[in-house]
Amino acid sequence: MTLHDLELSGNCYKVRLFAALAGIPLQLAPVDFLAGAHQRPPVIDLNPWGELPVLVDGEVVLRDSQAILVYLALRHAAPQWLPREPAGMAAVMQWLSTAANEVQNGPCAARLVDKFGYALDKADTLRRSARILPLIDAHLAHRDWLAAPQATIADCAVFPYLALAHEGGVDLAPYPHLRGWIGRVKALPGFLPMPGV
Amino acid sequence: MTLHDLELSGNCYKVRLFAALAGIPLQLAPVDFLAGAHQRPPVIDLNPWGELPVLVDGEVVLRDSQAILVYLALRHAAPQWLPREPAGMAAVMQWLSTAANEVQNGPCAARLVDKFGYALDKADTLRRSARILPLIDAHLAHRDWLAAPQATIADCAVFPYLALAHEGGVDLAPYPHLRGWIGRVKALPGFLPMPGV
Repeated sequence: MTLHDLELSGNCYKVRLFAALAGIPLQLAPVDFLAGAHQRPPVIDLNPWGELPVLVDGEVVLRDSQAILVYLALRHAAPQWLPREPAGMAAVMQWLSTAANEVQNGPCAARLVDKFGYALDKADTLRRSARILPLIDAHLAHRDWLAAPQATIADCAVFPYLALAHEGGVDLAPYPHLRGWIGRVKALPGFLPMPGV
Repeated sequence: MTLHDLELSGNCYKVRLFAALAGIPLQLAPVDFLAGAHQRPPVIDLNPWGELPVLVDGEVVLRDSQAILVYLALRHAAPQWLPREPAGMAAVMQWLSTAANEVQNGPCAARLVDKFGYALDKADTLRRSARILPLIDAHLAHRDWLAAPQATIADCAVFPYLALAHEGGVDLAPYPHLRGWIGRVKALPGFLPMPGV
């Protein structure tokens, strides 16, 4: 099972982190992003969207970090990481959408501007961050984990770009519950860091 | 089972459409969005994010249209709408993320500007639309449905804001495969329209 990977990508890190926590063996194939290798064959043939990560498991080829987390959890991990009953799985799904949209276009995009010079509207990324962070903080005021009594792939999907928020100039100081949760993720057995986390 | 609903919301329409296609009885509770009822009790107590739709099914309360689709498919619909095996479910998940991010911030956001006067960056919504539409069109060049040999909740999640794209000044004329797919969705047994579709 191969993950086409970029070390500095929080989206790739979602997958590396979950694989480490769940004990899933993953072969990393680093992609030379700065040279545009993700926009050329063979990577673009695996994912026409030209984005990383891409997972290849035999015949299965998947784009989108959230979809990859779902696949790995269903196929290669203990059920605690993605509840199978409808309400439990939907609770996780809420946070996969949040990771795909609000976190991606908030703290992640802010970091893309500051750290990698992307031509995005920095003020918009900060506005989006300022909306989402109090909601997440309030959600975690009386919960240890985002979507279940235990850690799930929801935590793996949301964690990277919040733990990297400082690299986009987004300050987590006003959000103590969120910071407590970041500490709990970091204390999980098998936790794997990345540069900046 | 109650859907806190807004008729003109494509996100609410995702749920109404799927319920109609899958034969799931849904009680609609219209929310007075223009009067800000989604930002006040009792709706804000159900969803602190202040967004619609919200689904209430007994003890289960869910925000996020994608999560609601997953819940309804797992609990109340035939398995064809959301494959249970890992690769099949992950294929659907890819498109739920696309609906949550690229479609939401592209064609949906363009419509929010043109139809409802939202103070968003219209050029950005058009740029995002121009990126995503050729990818979706190419994906549908040799497929009838987004994620499986049959229609799934992936189609229900992506359909509304593409079928409403014209209301945001996004022209689908260059995308014949996408338009063909819109026609196939509209021809599904039980199909339900909304204003503008």
